[in-house]
Amino acid sequence: MFLRSEKAPFDSMHEECGVFGVYSSETRNVAYTVYYGLYALQHRGQESCGIAVSYNDKMDYYKGMGLVSEVFSSGKLEALPEGDIAIGHVRYSTTGASHLLNAQPIVFTGKCGKTAVAHNGNLVNTKSLRDELISDNAVFQTTIDSEVIAYMINKYSDGDILTGIKRACAKFRGSYCLVVMTTNQLVAVRDPYGIRPMVLGKSLDDYIVASETCALDAVGATYIRDLKPGEILVIDSNGLTSYFMDDVPKKSASCIFELVYFARADSVMDGQSVYDARKMAGKILAEKYGVEADIVSGVPDSAVVAARGYSEASGIPYVEALAKNRYVGRTFIQPDQAMRENVLNVKMNALRNNIQGKRLIIIDDSIVRGTTSKKIVRMLREAGAKEVHVRICSPIIKHPCHLGIDMQTYNQLIGAYRNEEQIAKVIGADSIRYLSIEDLVETCKCSNLDFCLGCFNGQYPYPSEETDKYKLE
Amino acid sequence: MFLRSEKAPFDSMHEECGVFGVYSSETRNVAYTVYYGLYALQHRGQESCGIAVSYNDKMDYYKGMGLVSEVFSSGKLEALPEGDIAIGHVRYSTTGASHLLNAQPIVFTGKCGKTAVAHNGNLVNTKSLRDELISDNAVFQTTIDSEVIAYMINKYSDGDILTGIKRACAKFRGSYCLVVMTTNQLVAVRDPYGIRPMVLGKSLDDYIVASETCALDAVGATYIRDLKPGEILVIDSNGLTSYFMDDVPKKSASCIFELVYFARADSVMDGQSVYDARKMAGKILAEKYGVEADIVSGVPDSAVVAARGYSEASGIPYVEALAKNRYVGRTFIQPDQAMRENVLNVKMNALRNNIQGKRLIIIDDSIVRGTTSKKIVRMLREAGAKEVHVRICSPIIKHPCHLGIDMQTYNQLIGAYRNEEQIAKVIGADSIRYLSIEDLVETCKCSNLDFCLGCFNGQYPYPSEETDKYKLE
Amino acid sequence: MFLRSEKAPFDSMHEECGVFGVYSSETRNVAYTVYYGLYALQHRGQESCGIAVSYNDKMDYYKGMGLVSEVFSSGKLEALPEGDIAIGHVRYSTTGASHLLNAQPIVFTGKCGKTAVAHNGNLVNTKSLRDELISDNAVFQTTIDSEVIAYMINKYSDGDILTGIKRACAKFRGSYCLVVMTTNQLVAVRDPYGIRPMVLGKSLDDYIVASETCALDAVGATYIRDLKPGEILVIDSNGLTSYFMDDVPKKSASCIFELVYFARADSVMDGQSVYDARKMAGKILAEKYGVEADIVSGVPDSAVVAARGYSEASGIPYVEALAKNRYVGRTFIQPDQAMRENVLNVKMNALRNNIQGKRLIIIDDSIVRGTTSKKIVRMLREAGAKEVHVRICSPIIKHPCHLGIDMQTYNQLIGAYRNEEQIAKVIGADSIRYLSIEDLVETCKCSNLDFCLGCFNGQYPYPSEETDKYKLE
Amino acid sequence: MFLRSEKAPFDSMHEECGVFGVYSSETRNVAYTVYYGLYALQHRGQESCGIAVSYNDKMDYYKGMGLVSEVFSSGKLEALPEGDIAIGHVRYSTTGASHLLNAQPIVFTGKCGKTAVAHNGNLVNTKSLRDELISDNAVFQTTIDSEVIAYMINKYSDGDILTGIKRACAKFRGSYCLVVMTTNQLVAVRDPYGIRPMVLGKSLDDYIVASETCALDAVGATYIRDLKPGEILVIDSNGLTSYFMDDVPKKSASCIFELVYFARADSVMDGQSVYDARKMAGKILAEKYGVEADIVSGVPDSAVVAARGYSEASGIPYVEALAKNRYVGRTFIQPDQAMRENVLNVKMNALRNNIQGKRLIIIDDSIVRGTTSKKIVRMLREAGAKEVHVRICSPIIKHPCHLGIDMQTYNQLIGAYRNEEQIAKVIGADSIRYLSIEDLVETCKCSNLDFCLGCFNGQYPYPSEETDKYKLE
Repeated sequence: MFLRSEKAPFDSMHEECGVFGVYSSETRNVAYTVYYGLYALQHRGQESCGIAVSYNDKMDYYKGMGLVSEVFSSGKLEALPEGDIAIGHVRYSTTGASHLLNAQPIVFTGKCGKTAVAHNGNLVNTKSLRDELISDNAVFQTTIDSEVIAYMINKYSDGDILTGIKRACAKFRGSYCLVVMTTNQLVAVRDPYGIRPMVLGKSLDDYIVASETCALDAVGATYIRDLKPGEILVIDSNGLTSYFMDDVPKKSASCIFELVYFARADSVMDGQSVYDARKMAGKILAEKYGVEADIVSGVPDSAVVAARGYSEASGIPYVEALAKNRYVGRTFIQPDQAMRENVLNVKMNALRNNIQGKRLIIIDDSIVRGTTSKKIVRMLREAGAKEVHVRICSPIIKHPCHLGIDMQTYNQLIGAYRNEEQIAKVIGADSIRYLSIEDLVETCKCSNLDFCLGCFNGQYPYPSEETDKYKLE
Repeated sequence: MFLRSEKAPFDSMHEECGVFGVYSSETRNVAYTVYYGLYALQHRGQESCGIAVSYNDKMDYYKGMGLVSEVFSSGKLEALPEGDIAIGHVRYSTTGASHLLNAQPIVFTGKCGKTAVAHNGNLVNTKSLRDELISDNAVFQTTIDSEVIAYMINKYSDGDILTGIKRACAKFRGSYCLVVMTTNQLVAVRDPYGIRPMVLGKSLDDYIVASETCALDAVGATYIRDLKPGEILVIDSNGLTSYFMDDVPKKSASCIFELVYFARADSVMDGQSVYDARKMAGKILAEKYGVEADIVSGVPDSAVVAARGYSEASGIPYVEALAKNRYVGRTFIQPDQAMRENVLNVKMNALRNNIQGKRLIIIDDSIVRGTTSKKIVRMLREAGAKEVHVRICSPIIKHPCHLGIDMQTYNQLIGAYRNEEQIAKVIGADSIRYLSIEDLVETCKCSNLDFCLGCFNGQYPYPSEETDKYKLE
Repeated sequence: MFLRSEKAPFDSMHEECGVFGVYSSETRNVAYTVYYGLYALQHRGQESCGIAVSYNDKMDYYKGMGLVSEVFSSGKLEALPEGDIAIGHVRYSTTGASHLLNAQPIVFTGKCGKTAVAHNGNLVNTKSLRDELISDNAVFQTTIDSEVIAYMINKYSDGDILTGIKRACAKFRGSYCLVVMTTNQLVAVRDPYGIRPMVLGKSLDDYIVASETCALDAVGATYIRDLKPGEILVIDSNGLTSYFMDDVPKKSASCIFELVYFARADSVMDGQSVYDARKMAGKILAEKYGVEADIVSGVPDSAVVAARGYSEASGIPYVEALAKNRYVGRTFIQPDQAMRENVLNVKMNALRNNIQGKRLIIIDDSIVRGTTSKKIVRMLREAGAKEVHVRICSPIIKHPCHLGIDMQTYNQLIGAYRNEEQIAKVIGADSIRYLSIEDLVETCKCSNLDFCLGCFNGQYPYPSEETDKYKLE
Repeated sequence: MFLRSEKAPFDSMHEECGVFGVYSSETRNVAYTVYYGLYALQHRGQESCGIAVSYNDKMDYYKGMGLVSEVFSSGKLEALPEGDIAIGHVRYSTTGASHLLNAQPIVFTGKCGKTAVAHNGNLVNTKSLRDELISDNAVFQTTIDSEVIAYMINKYSDGDILTGIKRACAKFRGSYCLVVMTTNQLVAVRDPYGIRPMVLGKSLDDYIVASETCALDAVGATYIRDLKPGEILVIDSNGLTSYFMDDVPKKSASCIFELVYFARADSVMDGQSVYDARKMAGKILAEKYGVEADIVSGVPDSAVVAARGYSEASGIPYVEALAKNRYVGRTFIQPDQAMRENVLNVKMNALRNNIQGKRLIIIDDSIVRGTTSKKIVRMLREAGAKEVHVRICSPIIKHPCHLGIDMQTYNQLIGAYRNEEQIAKVIGADSIRYLSIEDLVETCKCSNLDFCLGCFNGQYPYPSEETDKYKLE
């Protein structure tokens, strides 16, 4: 139950970052292409964003705090030079505080000359790598693991960016999709487990790489294919050349949460339509975890599709139970304690007419902390719902995630030590049912990758005992 | 087919204003109540907003360009004093250019001392009134008819605000819902035809007036009733006192477009649930104007409910055809001509998987200019739809509106001189059908008011020959 | 002892406003001319500023809080249209709080069509006029007397701006220099006592009016003449036409404080060079109020010239005693109490080497509250001055001013009830001497007007019993 | 002839940076102390500024583009934590473009943990050092040599900051004054030739280091002494400990331009009062390079003192010839070509009354390009000066500077290939005379350091053939 535009008041799971890159056959306003691409990826991060452009052996860039439209207003986009390669990034911090200096892409001068790096994901051995680099004379000006990635690539390079990337990736443990730009090459990288997504597209003679297919659509590019786990794709004047890391695991571990919640419904990931997965989740909930009720509804926006899947499978009519305020904005002033009870409904409001006296099934994609769920259940009851049955399109989250999702400790998870009955009690629902892990995998059966299900079953591609215990500061 | 966050690029019909007022039994942070109320009314205007507070026989206020969250960030809300009465306004200009000075409430010193006025609607005799006032020595610092309203109330007052309002209203022709604040009274006014909406609610000992019930919900207030056409409701230390204008017409003329498009789905207007009306529209479209197809879908967000109504009535499965980008924002930089073809899909994107090879019915609430409709039809076809049948939840708009909706000339209306077949051809649809006027009225049969249907049938509560031909400058 | 860039921390006397107008023979970027003119008048007001342009029977304008350079940055100046008439204003509030709506020029639509008014000065009968206008149905949206002036001109006009101005001026009591713009005329007005300054200049075929000659220099215009007290100068397609108010007093009452402090040293007012007056003041101080000392110095910037006059007349060497920080800025954060003692010298610093062990004469233009003087004396002593003798280029301020200078109550004036000896004691000086009133008049003997000396002798052109006791709110 | 607030339009020589550091015996609002210190150093750089605070083994900082008052308004200063050590920097770029990322202090995590570095000066071997570091795996995120300095200190450190500084300084060639902060030490460094200034002061139990004494005065600190060339002063819980670099040259090479132009008049540098040096320069000009004239004047603000020295020595009366507009500001919009001739006088204006018909001597501190000088001479002639004789308080600038002054190529220097007669002709003066090198040294005879006179005689402490030819990008 996520309200995407919130800063973190309730039950927010952070959204990861989004990356985008374009290699053009000619010098043109490539920054605009990145701008529209980042727009389409804005749901993946609203904290900061940036665009770097390569032109005439030089690079220029602009980064700022806020939405793409805010940061690049007032002539900032127009001020970027024309060029032939450009990359961009939207960020919601998992690691590193909210400093402008933590915004990406990171642009630097090193062994390969001017270089820019944008990163989506989360390394689990950042601290060790950084300590190693520091003992090797490096200095760190930010608190983001992306800076560590940039330094590693540079350190292991011999002047050739590909060498640096290949050798550095051998040291990285965790999730990472990278776009790396030099003054004549664009390189896209996907981690060996394929944890984070990355797609390749083409628009006329330009190549595009992006976190999701919706960004290809936004710039009129045709989808070519997903990057493979462990793939290092070099785009330059020779066209596309594909390399692979050594020792790519046979079994991939793509983050299933991308499909459950992160990705936009119109994206397709590794063959799996996000929309289809969500609808199927609703269907299975109806078939296996159904309950007698008058109406079924979904928490907007991400659970609406699933709720309709439930409705279709069960025959229980779909009715909107909640209306969402589209204009909450980033700088919403929280009500003080005295007023809080009265202002519950600013962001979301129950449709009293639709639910009064009704037995209601409400579908949500997932529950992390449970605080928003609790509020929603109460709101529905106050609007007259006779019964409120919660159905969740994923299993109980029982374990933290160290690979890019902002749920990092056990004690923040409502489901860490509770079963369904106990959770229902905490949030005040008449009943709650989750999908089983097998159910969830079934909803994503079109994916040609295997999944990481660590937050549900505690089995991570990288053993948690290897995971750094400390955050960078 | 409206994209609410656009400035006017495509097919935008302007959204009217929203007003809000609170009368508290004690001195407290009433500005916060207005703030949350305006948040809930933000869909009614995003251009500018303002809040005025009455305290200790004084008034303070703050107004700015932009969204409520933007304007009142950086300490502006906190800087407003505590008080016992406050009013607020969100605006999307129908009359008057985008100057800050045109923001409301208008706060002034006149015969009743400090006075503040906020207005939703559009007078049709502004020019005549203003000319009369100017010949009577008035000077006008803005280009909004709300300033004329304030001057009229003041002119006809004898030091008592009620007298001024009553006499001035006798001169007003057009649509107007007003909240008027003096240092000890809050007055809410609804025009004699009830063209624009206004509701009354209560929260503990506070009285609230607002354009829509969703704003009552947002501040935890209980709905009491709608204001009646021609009602002048005075709220002061004596509680509520209700007055009526002379010569209130027997037959009201409430704007049916509020239900079709403007209002938020969770609002209830004069007894009619907005949600129900929209769902019923879809149902009637299916029953009377159905077509053989594989799937039905709605243009997000306003036509989704109707599309599901269509689906339920027809048995044709509802499938999302379009995904909307929630982060377009106010300062979106339009692509230049060369790039336009490629970035068609930034704001809305077709879900290719869902529609490829399908015969598709797409539902929208209304069509004004037809430009967005044309884009959407093309987008759907490019995503593989075999047939695209458009169904509209209202009749053909054949006449301009002078009562608050931004469609003021015949030549901008795609339907002014075209029938369904011709419109289908222009927008590229395989077929298009609209509701008849009778159908539309049927969808709103729970309303206890009669409707203005001027934009459909040319019959206005105020004859168009009386309408001022000139805009204020 | 004034620090011009302060908001009011110490001994600040407010600075009045500055006005500027240009009438061009052709359509061109007249807003730029106003911009440079306002720059040169910036010392007369830093709170807000604005420019209005007349073009094709229309008017556009922009106003904002802050310095001319800040307000018109980011494309605001460029966004103003080309035109043939333009006026501008810089403001430091004497009346009216710091709201943007109080910024000038006031632009309105009235009997003469689009009209813009900018005002420098202060009426003493604002309250009465406003009450009269309110009873006559006017409403006031600001708290500045300039709005009253605009309403009065409009009220008494018969469609001709000149008529309105002439009749309204007959009602005004107080100080006022006006620039009034319609869509085809520029009118400059100087009050009948000539209290505030106004000059006329010419640049090629353009006529310029401005508060001071330094603004003529800034735009390359040649000085023609000062406006006469009671003059109403109309500039239009017929060229210059000069009218006069009825009953212009024989004896003018030009504010001598303009020469003492307000005006820029390079301006010439009614025949009197500001520079010469200040130098002469120093000379007389030396000749009549001299004291034995080692060095003489002036408080920068306004008293430096006088101090050199003192030095030349006395033979005592001039030495800089104080260095001023040129970068204090508008948003300087005041030290808290604990730190205050330690950061005494951020704005001004004593040159220890120059004064250590010396008997010092320090010259200042005037003393209002005395707080800054006290600080400076202490600073000089801490830097080692053996004796500190203060000499002031004007008489003791014994009475408030209601004509535009921000010293409005007796109890804020250090000199209201104190003689020189007592003042010396309060500020910690070894001695203090002021000019006599006769001395001051002698320094300005080149002026062809008589002076208002009200703040020194209590004799105002308008009896203080007629002065409104209340501020507008 | 410099106008300090200009961006570079005319004859601007850049101003170097300013640094400031405080070590407090207790945890308190040390950021405020830095704030007031930077205020006093604002004349040394207006492009960007920053403050870093050390507290509880952590560091926080804020940097921004613009003046100290602008950057730290809106709560930014208040948001910095309390702490016991803090450093700050004001910058005017000599190397590196105007990116925010180029602002200082540079804060990083390296071998000594959290470290912050602020630098005033210019290395001449930056390029070589950076190449060395890059081949050693470093990556550079900025284009400023201060980043190179930080990396060098880190590289040569063994975990102890003093070791790193000492070893790194052995590699640095050029000018550098550094303040370096760890979580428990403040280190101040002055280059071995003492090219840039640095002083030590004390305020209660706090130690202060700063570029100029005026910053000590601003925070109420007592001057203790100047740092010696080659000194590395460590301030920590053990108090002050002074170290020296190896091989400190016997003959220092302090930049004499600090005294001629950069420093504030109330500062004292290495025993030499800036004020005295400037006054003496005027005296020598009068005695050795005098000319018959009616009046003498100085270009404000920096040459006013010298002009009075000239006046005193020659007996020719000092008269203000130019008035300076104090409000030009950073965002001044340059007039277009057509308007330029008319707007010559916005920034400076001639006092016509004072100079009309007079033979005038005008004193300036130095001439770099000559463009402003030319404008001023013309302005004076247009104001009626009969003769204009220019006298300069320093020798002809014949060589570029690579040690921190922004005059880096021969062809931008008016004096590179011209003698006095030729220069007079170019700027339109009746005559021009400069001080000889010996004269200039004579004016600074109280300094206990030897001077770098490279821009006058081409003899630099570091041979120019060793100087990097390339700028960082």
